[in-house]
Amino acid sequence: MYTYSYLFDFTRNVFLKMGCSEADSRIIAEVFMAAELRDHASHGMIRIKDYYELWKAGRINVKPNIRKMHESPSTAVVDGDNAVGMVAARKSMEIAIEKAGTAGTGWVATRNSNHFGIAGYYAMMALEHNMTGICLTNANPLVSPTFSVSRMMGTNPIAVAIPAKNQPPFVADFATTPIARGKLAVAEKKGEKVPFGFVQDKAGNPSDDPAILRSGGSMLTLGGDRVHGSHKGYCLTAIVDIFSAVFSGANFGPFVPPSVAYLPVLEKKVGAGTGHFFGAMRIDSFQPAEDFKSKMDEWISTFRSSKPAEGMEKVLIPGDPEREAEARNMKEGIRLVPAIRKDLMEIASELEIPFS
Amino acid sequence: MYTYSYLFDFTRNVFLKMGCSEADSRIIAEVFMAAELRDHASHGMIRIKDYYELWKAGRINVKPNIRKMHESPSTAVVDGDNAVGMVAARKSMEIAIEKAGTAGTGWVATRNSNHFGIAGYYAMMALEHNMTGICLTNANPLVSPTFSVSRMMGTNPIAVAIPAKNQPPFVADFATTPIARGKLAVAEKKGEKVPFGFVQDKAGNPSDDPAILRSGGSMLTLGGDRVHGSHKGYCLTAIVDIFSAVFSGANFGPFVPPSVAYLPVLEKKVGAGTGHFFGAMRIDSFQPAEDFKSKMDEWISTFRSSKPAEGMEKVLIPGDPEREAEARNMKEGIRLVPAIRKDLMEIASELEIPFS
Repeated sequence: MYTYSYLFDFTRNVFLKMGCSEADSRIIAEVFMAAELRDHASHGMIRIKDYYELWKAGRINVKPNIRKMHESPSTAVVDGDNAVGMVAARKSMEIAIEKAGTAGTGWVATRNSNHFGIAGYYAMMALEHNMTGICLTNANPLVSPTFSVSRMMGTNPIAVAIPAKNQPPFVADFATTPIARGKLAVAEKKGEKVPFGFVQDKAGNPSDDPAILRSGGSMLTLGGDRVHGSHKGYCLTAIVDIFSAVFSGANFGPFVPPSVAYLPVLEKKVGAGTGHFFGAMRIDSFQPAEDFKSKMDEWISTFRSSKPAEGMEKVLIPGDPEREAEARNMKEGIRLVPAIRKDLMEIASELEIPFS
Repeated sequence: MYTYSYLFDFTRNVFLKMGCSEADSRIIAEVFMAAELRDHASHGMIRIKDYYELWKAGRINVKPNIRKMHESPSTAVVDGDNAVGMVAARKSMEIAIEKAGTAGTGWVATRNSNHFGIAGYYAMMALEHNMTGICLTNANPLVSPTFSVSRMMGTNPIAVAIPAKNQPPFVADFATTPIARGKLAVAEKKGEKVPFGFVQDKAGNPSDDPAILRSGGSMLTLGGDRVHGSHKGYCLTAIVDIFSAVFSGANFGPFVPPSVAYLPVLEKKVGAGTGHFFGAMRIDSFQPAEDFKSKMDEWISTFRSSKPAEGMEKVLIPGDPEREAEARNMKEGIRLVPAIRKDLMEIASELEIPFS
């Protein structure tokens, strides 16, 4: 078990050694640790190696000049200058929050960025400003539109954070596919099948093989099949892609660059890097802030008291599981599986920083 | 078969006779007809009776004073004064578009409204202004959160319309449940079962009975069950509810008033009427308008050329099926089933307007 501060310091040191500034390294470490604490380990320490390898391959910029390229009173387009995604994303959300301060809402589309960790981190930045936060991003193409077998979209997540008063905030943060990619890898390692509705084979037939992506298969959108509304999932995933990439001038859909160095840079580009989209909405641009927050308390307590299905203990509010995990992991520590620990030790050794 | 103009005139006449202004009656007829043309008949002529009965019961205001109650440069809250939903919604979207004209984006939350027809109509209003349009609404509670059996939410739709250049626009308009309520009624009438994943019984067990809502059952969120991501659908449906009702001061979740007169007014209110949420985003507040539209063309043609699954003819872009239906129905006419025709004849007779 590791403490938060041990892993935080290690992560910061890795990015410092890679050449990131002290401030940027702290931001990056904070986002990695937010993923670990919130039990989204798929976006946590396991990914440090990916950034490290991209850096070694010269595919990521540790001294970025992140700039606003275009703006209106409530919007901006930001060029991330090929930064580590967390750095471009945090700066972009800060601009959205600043815009919301004067215009009521702020909306920033970011291009030329990279994988940024968990979307929820940026949406939650709005909360302390009494704002609702929104964050979207596109990602490596693994997912097929309904009726198709081409990998056209990522698992493009949506995060929305809404402040309450005495209740904890409403925080939704979810991939727009039934499952995250990582769950396929886990099932494959265990030699297990996956339920139908997650993936299809290269002809478009339903499949329960978690390794099907290796033989031309693809992931399905939320809904799974047409009968169960996969076309709605396709709409959602597509909207996230368009807001993240067409609004910003990033690569869309099948052209999103790989977030790992072992996949080659794509030859065809239709924009710059990976794209994100951020929103901040001052709650008092709709209702007096206290009224808004009291009403959210009422919404949350109403939903929390809905009747559980037989055999279920309670009904959850989006954000509940992650907040419980956060408290537990902060107290009990964070466990890293041996394979990840080994990767981090190698990185530590190469960069000459302590890790054990 | 009826022509567009015949049904348009009839619908306008119904609302004129109910006391709506000429302008309001035209708006209402336009939205009803948009639903019929786009093959969303569940939101078309079949619903005229519902509005008529609400009006007879004195539960809807045909002479509304629709007002902005709160605003910032990019936002407003609108009170619909218990108007026919289409009238409050169109006015609200006009305000969102106006706000976007100066602030880059405009966001309007509307309370004290009623059922407004198809969400896509309002999102599409943005297109001719070179804006992306967004529309959300809450609705009568029929849907349970994941792990619950309480009916806490409507089938709360999301509509997003994004302009392109030579390609037709991207128009997504979908309920955040696997199916619309109407599909259950159709299956029930035919004596058919429905696939698992649409509804559950009152204990929370999977059900294939389309009539299960009559015996305490409820509809499920997109994803169907927890394994297939119903908690993501729950997040979506909940976000639509909060944006529509908490932002505006409307009734949220289980307190949304019935859109039919045969269900009693709820005793408990937590706000005013039904709530909607509208957004308009000037495309040139992100990219030069021509660049944006060319890029959308590229996005659309890329997705349109993705490889179909075996046995599938082509991959669709959101908005394709409705646009094809619109062209066909405008040319060939609109068919009304006998039961609806009978209802309309009765209304025509009572209001002394022609219909045959």
